[in-house]
Amino acid sequence: MRVLVTGAAGMVGRKLAERLAHEGALGGEALSQLTLLDTVEPATPDAAARAVECVVGDLAAPGTLARLIADRPDVVFHLAAVVSGEAESDFDKGYRVNLEGMRLLLDAIRGQGDAYRPRVVFSSSIAVFGPPFPDVIGDDQATTPQTSYGTQKAVAELLLADHSRRGLADGVSIRLPTICVRPGAPNRAASGFFSSIIREPLNGEEAILPVPEDVRHWFASPRTAVGFLLHAATLPRDALVGRRSLTMPGVSATVGEQIAALRAIGGDEAVRLIRREPDETIMRIVGGWPQAFDARCALELGFTAEESFEQIVRIHVEDEIGSRVA
Amino acid sequence: MRVLVTGAAGMVGRKLAERLAHEGALGGEALSQLTLLDTVEPATPDAAARAVECVVGDLAAPGTLARLIADRPDVVFHLAAVVSGEAESDFDKGYRVNLEGMRLLLDAIRGQGDAYRPRVVFSSSIAVFGPPFPDVIGDDQATTPQTSYGTQKAVAELLLADHSRRGLADGVSIRLPTICVRPGAPNRAASGFFSSIIREPLNGEEAILPVPEDVRHWFASPRTAVGFLLHAATLPRDALVGRRSLTMPGVSATVGEQIAALRAIGGDEAVRLIRREPDETIMRIVGGWPQAFDARCALELGFTAEESFEQIVRIHVEDEIGSRVA
Repeated sequence: MRVLVTGAAGMVGRKLAERLAHEGALGGEALSQLTLLDTVEPATPDAAARAVECVVGDLAAPGTLARLIADRPDVVFHLAAVVSGEAESDFDKGYRVNLEGMRLLLDAIRGQGDAYRPRVVFSSSIAVFGPPFPDVIGDDQATTPQTSYGTQKAVAELLLADHSRRGLADGVSIRLPTICVRPGAPNRAASGFFSSIIREPLNGEEAILPVPEDVRHWFASPRTAVGFLLHAATLPRDALVGRRSLTMPGVSATVGEQIAALRAIGGDEAVRLIRREPDETIMRIVGGWPQAFDARCALELGFTAEESFEQIVRIHVEDEIGSRVA
Repeated sequence: MRVLVTGAAGMVGRKLAERLAHEGALGGEALSQLTLLDTVEPATPDAAARAVECVVGDLAAPGTLARLIADRPDVVFHLAAVVSGEAESDFDKGYRVNLEGMRLLLDAIRGQGDAYRPRVVFSSSIAVFGPPFPDVIGDDQATTPQTSYGTQKAVAELLLADHSRRGLADGVSIRLPTICVRPGAPNRAASGFFSSIIREPLNGEEAILPVPEDVRHWFASPRTAVGFLLHAATLPRDALVGRRSLTMPGVSATVGEQIAALRAIGGDEAVRLIRREPDETIMRIVGGWPQAFDARCALELGFTAEESFEQIVRIHVEDEIGSRVA
């Protein structure tokens, strides 16, 4: 079983690579090759006794994907992307990486011929949705993205689905919830506070909350995101006929519920580290985001997420903090 | 007012060009230039006393669109497309014309800079929808195309919407119903019988009906399709904020209702010219097509369609047959 991961130095990519290297197998088959591509050197997973190849390269540059696909990986996890904020500020880069990247990948696969038809697991996003939408968004909701990033994800989903329908690939696009709790330093994304109001207080540091407690959003842990990717990689081909773009399950929680979960795990002392500093701009941006989904198709296909925000916080403690808390 | 029409030699493009040349104006402004592009020589409209330029060229070839956009048309009707059957049989050609064509158009517009922001009216299609869908499809239905043609239309819609949101164009995509009654010779499209069971009998010729009378579909006349395009060209810019891909209104009719309309206008002698010859392949294809839409957004924006299939047949008689019948 040969596996290629694009965007392997990103937060989810790194965790996916570590998990694959640790398990040494995917879908019951031993890994014979694990190739990790990113624009910066992907960390070699700790458990990498087996063949791990790290490739530094621009997936949208001529030849990069063609060379990697020439190895005929059985599964491609296509995670590489210019993130939302950058895709909005750098129009050309966003289209080049997020849209042309998918086209080049599909062209490279098709170029192999011989009925080569790898499973392609594409990390899409709930950013494909835009208002107006219902409080709970179903599987048949139109994709009306309000950002270039969301547009590029929606287009890449369509291209992957059409190539799959025509037998030129075997794709599944999974629309990830907002990943929470993101490990690492605070970032300046509009969504950053959803993670920082948990992460910083559990680390004894202050965090800023720019929105009211009744703001509701849709979450999954990094561990669960990796679980989605692995499950998507091993779904039987005939399970995907007719629908290859799947909204993932998640936890719908208000900021107030996030804070209650923080209190349950970190106590009042943690909650006291949240400083309220309302920010009209962030409130406006977040006000246009989805609050909850009825991810029926994905649930029927066996994708599973957390059942509460408290569980998401516990996973963060287990995976990132270890025994220091709880 | 300068106007560019791509795909001007097609059935709808020709009628649009004739109407524009006849009226000599669009949205109350006199036409100073009407440029007609197609891969074959577009017919010069009869009423063309004013500046009509016919250009034969491949819109996906380097430079074609850049040259035409350098004239800075105020309105671009982008109708050029590889049709459904050909986009399915010639994968590369379909993507090149239907998807790259839109990208080249948008790049050419953006390349002009200086806040040049023409209205782009894009002829999309109900082929962006695929089963499963409800009996009546609303404005928020997901686009899950089951053909490469539908995929290319859905992608082009997304690209046009994102460029418009960013102020790089001023686009509106209109999803046309199945155009009926198509003038001219029978074609081999799976949908051809919807027109031929009206057109041929009114012409004293036999037509073949390959499906049962309870098959239901979604129709508009060629005249109404041109009306949609003209209305889309003149909508105020602020009417389009937030939703630039619009399902057009139409008439939902069964084949039985089509035949009743034919009887009302052509009499029993016309209906007797329909020969039933069930075709499993066509039944299967047509079985996956939409039956009816609730096109609320378009109706609110003032788009209007026929109110009955009989009206569609009367328009065919008026526009194509003249006084010979009825």
